[in-house]
Amino acid sequence: MSDLKIIVQKYGGSSVATPERIKAVAERIKGYVANGYSVVVVVSAMGKTTDGLIKLAGEISAAPNRREMDMLLATGEQVSIALLAMALQEVGVDAISYTGSQVKMMTDGNFSNAKINSIATERLEGSLRQGKVVIVAGFQGIDADENITTLGRGGSDTSAVALATVLKTRDCEIYTDVDGVYTADPRIIANPKKLNEISYDEMLELARLGAKVLHSRSVEFAKKFNIRLHVRSSFNYEEGTIVMPREEMMEKFVISGVTHKMNQAKVTIRDIPDRPGIAASLFGRLAENKISVDMIVQSTGKDGIASISFTIEKDDLKKTLGICESMKSEMGGTQVDSKDDIAVVSAVGVGMISSYGVAARMFRVLAEHGVNIEMIATSEIGISCVIDTKYIELAIKIIHKEFIE
Amino acid sequence: MSDLKIIVQKYGGSSVATPERIKAVAERIKGYVANGYSVVVVVSAMGKTTDGLIKLAGEISAAPNRREMDMLLATGEQVSIALLAMALQEVGVDAISYTGSQVKMMTDGNFSNAKINSIATERLEGSLRQGKVVIVAGFQGIDADENITTLGRGGSDTSAVALATVLKTRDCEIYTDVDGVYTADPRIIANPKKLNEISYDEMLELARLGAKVLHSRSVEFAKKFNIRLHVRSSFNYEEGTIVMPREEMMEKFVISGVTHKMNQAKVTIRDIPDRPGIAASLFGRLAENKISVDMIVQSTGKDGIASISFTIEKDDLKKTLGICESMKSEMGGTQVDSKDDIAVVSAVGVGMISSYGVAARMFRVLAEHGVNIEMIATSEIGISCVIDTKYIELAIKIIHKEFIE
Repeated sequence: MSDLKIIVQKYGGSSVATPERIKAVAERIKGYVANGYSVVVVVSAMGKTTDGLIKLAGEISAAPNRREMDMLLATGEQVSIALLAMALQEVGVDAISYTGSQVKMMTDGNFSNAKINSIATERLEGSLRQGKVVIVAGFQGIDADENITTLGRGGSDTSAVALATVLKTRDCEIYTDVDGVYTADPRIIANPKKLNEISYDEMLELARLGAKVLHSRSVEFAKKFNIRLHVRSSFNYEEGTIVMPREEMMEKFVISGVTHKMNQAKVTIRDIPDRPGIAASLFGRLAENKISVDMIVQSTGKDGIASISFTIEKDDLKKTLGICESMKSEMGGTQVDSKDDIAVVSAVGVGMISSYGVAARMFRVLAEHGVNIEMIATSEIGISCVIDTKYIELAIKIIHKEFIE
Repeated sequence: MSDLKIIVQKYGGSSVATPERIKAVAERIKGYVANGYSVVVVVSAMGKTTDGLIKLAGEISAAPNRREMDMLLATGEQVSIALLAMALQEVGVDAISYTGSQVKMMTDGNFSNAKINSIATERLEGSLRQGKVVIVAGFQGIDADENITTLGRGGSDTSAVALATVLKTRDCEIYTDVDGVYTADPRIIANPKKLNEISYDEMLELARLGAKVLHSRSVEFAKKFNIRLHVRSSFNYEEGTIVMPREEMMEKFVISGVTHKMNQAKVTIRDIPDRPGIAASLFGRLAENKISVDMIVQSTGKDGIASISFTIEKDDLKKTLGICESMKSEMGGTQVDSKDDIAVVSAVGVGMISSYGVAARMFRVLAEHGVNIEMIATSEIGISCVIDTKYIELAIKIIHKEFIE
């Protein structure tokens, strides 16, 4: 396909929420066709369609069968692809829509969270060669037995990246209702900076630490297959943010984003003998109970007595405390404490790797403003601090000011 | 599959219009499973879903591409099958849903009005053998290139009959919101009689002459493959009407139904030379213009001068008159008349074949009540009279009284 200039575009639910929005998307695609692009489009379900279908299923069953849930949810994207094909034809652009089944978007059989194994390109390529815009239903695939599967949250982004990969193009645009990736949440920072570029790792770290622009799996996929993800708005023609390999980036900030997580809780188990296997046993038990643990800090005091602190979603606190209490004697711990009014503020940036003292600078500005740090966790490109919920806005503002403004 | 007691059930849109209705259908199916049946269920889209989707497409394009329209409409049935499978599982009945694609409901490529060519039974039979209720999306199939097709109006009935055929069972229930086939429209006749049985031919004739219970294609299909169609209500447990071969019927009425068509118009072309090919040429031209002609009467007068009268939908009158005028000289006809306030009343019954004088009796009772007959057409099992619209209710009542009450 090297003779075709292929671009993959993914339009999210807000970009195709109404017939008018779908027509606007068709006009945008028409512009790319006029510029010589062979366009492959991935669309999500219109607006809140998926939520509506989930609600409908909820009226039938409190715990709907996952195969049938995927059968149900896959209809949302099928509606969108048909309507977008009609809208393109209406403005004189030849187009054809395909379900996940029709392009053999093969996945494993893990309903509601399936992984893509392969995509057949013959039919896609055939339609592109005929000069058609090809519209593929996002979020869905089929397993080896032709059961319909869905890819989980953010699945359409992953569909788009997978299509770019098999069609051997690096150009993948992710259209959404924001202009790109910002250095902070605009609801907190009045004028955050829009990033022109960000590395896969930073994007993954931001997603992990609370940012909601792209789902992690699509970024991991893009990183693995070296796809440049252009995150941009379908409501204007501004350039957005390109998620790309670190080594290709022109601009590298020390900190490229400040993010946060609310509704967290912290649990501390004190006075545990520092003996191998205790952490494994505790966190194994939590995982069995589907409790997602975020930060973990273990400290060893004198006489080999340790304490373990970790953070979880506030909703899981009660269940977690129950498990900890039941394991206390087994662990030899004498005290379980918890705190449910905490939040996590994080700074992320590849520049940290080569800049000394970023962590120290961050701790200093927080201290200068009287923000007490309860826990600290670091990764290669990120620093996270657990603080009191009441200080979260202040913390974001001062870190953003210190490193970005 | 001869060891399994298979029944095919089709539930129409009103039978699955809400989550509550779907749960009620699940309970009904559960009863059949408890009685040892292997149940194959065909469902339509919920309530007015299809109309909603058509409206949505209309907001995008005045003449949507038919392939994409089928892609769009097929989602309606897919939602229903998933929800019904969940509802069955919720009441402890093992069930699995399949799209037309998944059961290889192969059709021709005539989008929006496709014909079924074949159905693969392996998967269906496999699921039935596992003790599952199998739920199949009605109205939809795929063509040889795996494009999604739909079967046109009444398509889900046809899906059900086709499934009964390939699964080699004669038992096919068509659930709707009426109790069965009645001898007349209950909006006109206060207490019409519900028929326990009706022959395929009568049902076809009734459908052709205005009755709306079953679509003709499903009845033709049932006749061809000798399937007994049990038309009944999903809102109660009354027996409905069984559509069956004439020779198997226990009760044979002279007249089994009185039906009518409103909004008809009559066109008469007078003084045409009685020459071969004129009718063919006229009706050929009307067909090219997609005008559906219902009754046709040609009479030859003295000196080989003929006149032709025919009925059409009132909406087509203007177009028809234009075509007739343009062909008048070609036909040698001197006058084109029309009347747009006519209706057609018909009596249908296999008993006519062996009862003499049914037509005469019908004409007599109409005359006794001052109803003038403008045109008459007869078939083996039906008599239709064109009358003034204002007499239609009266005509239905007196014919129903004479032959049925």
